[in-house]
Amino acid sequence: MVTDGTAVLGLGDIGPAAALPVMEGKAALFKQFAGVDAVPICLDCTDTEEIVETVARLAPSFGGINLEDISAPRCFAIERLLQDRLDIPVFHDDQHGTAIVALAALENAARLTGRRLGDLRAVVSGAGAAGVAVTRILLAAGIGDIAVGDSRGILHPGRPNLTAIKATVAAETNRAGFTGSINSALAGADVFLGLSSGKVPEEAVASMASNAIVFAMANPDPEVDPEIAHCYARIVATGRSDYPNQINNVLAFPGVFRGALDVRASRVTESMKLAAADALAAVIVDELTEQHIIPSVFDDRVAPAVAAAVARQAHVDGVARR
Amino acid sequence: MVTDGTAVLGLGDIGPAAALPVMEGKAALFKQFAGVDAVPICLDCTDTEEIVETVARLAPSFGGINLEDISAPRCFAIERLLQDRLDIPVFHDDQHGTAIVALAALENAARLTGRRLGDLRAVVSGAGAAGVAVTRILLAAGIGDIAVGDSRGILHPGRPNLTAIKATVAAETNRAGFTGSINSALAGADVFLGLSSGKVPEEAVASMASNAIVFAMANPDPEVDPEIAHCYARIVATGRSDYPNQINNVLAFPGVFRGALDVRASRVTESMKLAAADALAAVIVDELTEQHIIPSVFDDRVAPAVAAAVARQAHVDGVARR
Repeated sequence: MVTDGTAVLGLGDIGPAAALPVMEGKAALFKQFAGVDAVPICLDCTDTEEIVETVARLAPSFGGINLEDISAPRCFAIERLLQDRLDIPVFHDDQHGTAIVALAALENAARLTGRRLGDLRAVVSGAGAAGVAVTRILLAAGIGDIAVGDSRGILHPGRPNLTAIKATVAAETNRAGFTGSINSALAGADVFLGLSSGKVPEEAVASMASNAIVFAMANPDPEVDPEIAHCYARIVATGRSDYPNQINNVLAFPGVFRGALDVRASRVTESMKLAAADALAAVIVDELTEQHIIPSVFDDRVAPAVAAAVARQAHVDGVARR
Repeated sequence: MVTDGTAVLGLGDIGPAAALPVMEGKAALFKQFAGVDAVPICLDCTDTEEIVETVARLAPSFGGINLEDISAPRCFAIERLLQDRLDIPVFHDDQHGTAIVALAALENAARLTGRRLGDLRAVVSGAGAAGVAVTRILLAAGIGDIAVGDSRGILHPGRPNLTAIKATVAAETNRAGFTGSINSALAGADVFLGLSSGKVPEEAVASMASNAIVFAMANPDPEVDPEIAHCYARIVATGRSDYPNQINNVLAFPGVFRGALDVRASRVTESMKLAAADALAAVIVDELTEQHIIPSVFDDRVAPAVAAAVARQAHVDGVARR
């Protein structure tokens, strides 16, 4: 587990020493849920190239690299450069862990409401690490119509001053051609996915389609107050443990690494992430209710199911080495 | 624990991946003997500056840095530069672990033969990491007359083409002014300390003083065959586990780190190393025989005694932070 302490959940840019207890807690989760021995490495540098060099140098000791709490947009380049250089999995949990769990929850929400993923129109609020990764996995899973917004509104190719990653997202999304605010895009939308701290007003939630799905994942303050969301949406999920349907990365990362390490995978492919989401959703497919679209973090069926699916897919994808 | 795999005991320059099992074994010893959680970090770089930068960047996660199996002379600069930069102990076990255990054994050998350290004339064979460190701790402990030799003979200030570290050693040692071979310096010497693979002929051992002490520590092939050494020397020690008096670093490093970590020491001072050696020797001071001048590696009194002495001395030296 490697962090530079620049984007610690709920705490922000607190530096490597202060990030250590968070990493230690996550190491305990790796061990508890999947028997993975994780070592917290908190780096005293924030430059992209320095982080990449440092991790590449120490990689011979490890079976995989889990990047954590590194701020966007550096996290995108760091992950890509490291994966290009190393022959072990490099996985940025804030991106892909979140994306896998959100997709699994959405699969079950669609099942429960009798719709196919391809029928849903979604709005993603947030174009940071998690927002971009969730958008990409949803596209890969077949949701065709996604509008992604940041604090300046919906991303579209004509918007000036887009960062490189936002320009790519703008080109891949927004089939409907929205150019205004996130709130206006919500009118008639089936799904809201909140991955930023931006608040959504009640009127915008009220304007969504029937059987609406609201995942307000900002932690500790959801983008939509869950009480209000329930007035208009059929299914509500958050990042919090004190509401039903918690979107929590711990449902993904222990099993993903267990599976990848078990088969000595050289990387975590896009298909392996999709397989992880499918396996996670399937754990409770016979128990679905509006209050239970994603397994509990204490469900001990989760990590083995995710690990098995990831390992199987690694073989299919030709990245397994045993 | 940090290595670059360039000087692995008995194996040489085998690289970081091949060094990993050796480091893992050492991590198990840290845990078993002193409850220290050690993480093996095998670096895929050998440049002094790159190693220093890399370790400095990852240091926020760790309470101390144990350098391992890094070849001389880079190991000297790496240790010094890192200790200057970091406020946690940086300890090169191949140097200081060996030095502490060798000094402890020599203290007890002197006790057993009724001599003071200051009365002994010693010859050190080897001017690599261990040879230099053993020489320095013996000087600090009060042995006034030490001649140090390498494959080209005894170090003296007039010898051409000395490396920086060897020039320093030459200036600090060899009060008797030897300029020839190690073998000639052994005539009348009380102590031989072997820290290289260079063989010593039987005649040279035979020429030593009465009650001679021979520590032939090269592993697995001692500089003097122990059977031959016993014909002339009163006390013989080796680095091997199948002879009595094994000089094994595991007698030092677990306790040294336990003590330093317990008091959150900012460094391991020279006095802390001397205190570790004294404590190690003292463990068996009432049980001394020619076959038992150093505790067994399985003596469970060792690590607590060394740790307590190191922690106490850290307070005396003002480097303890609790």
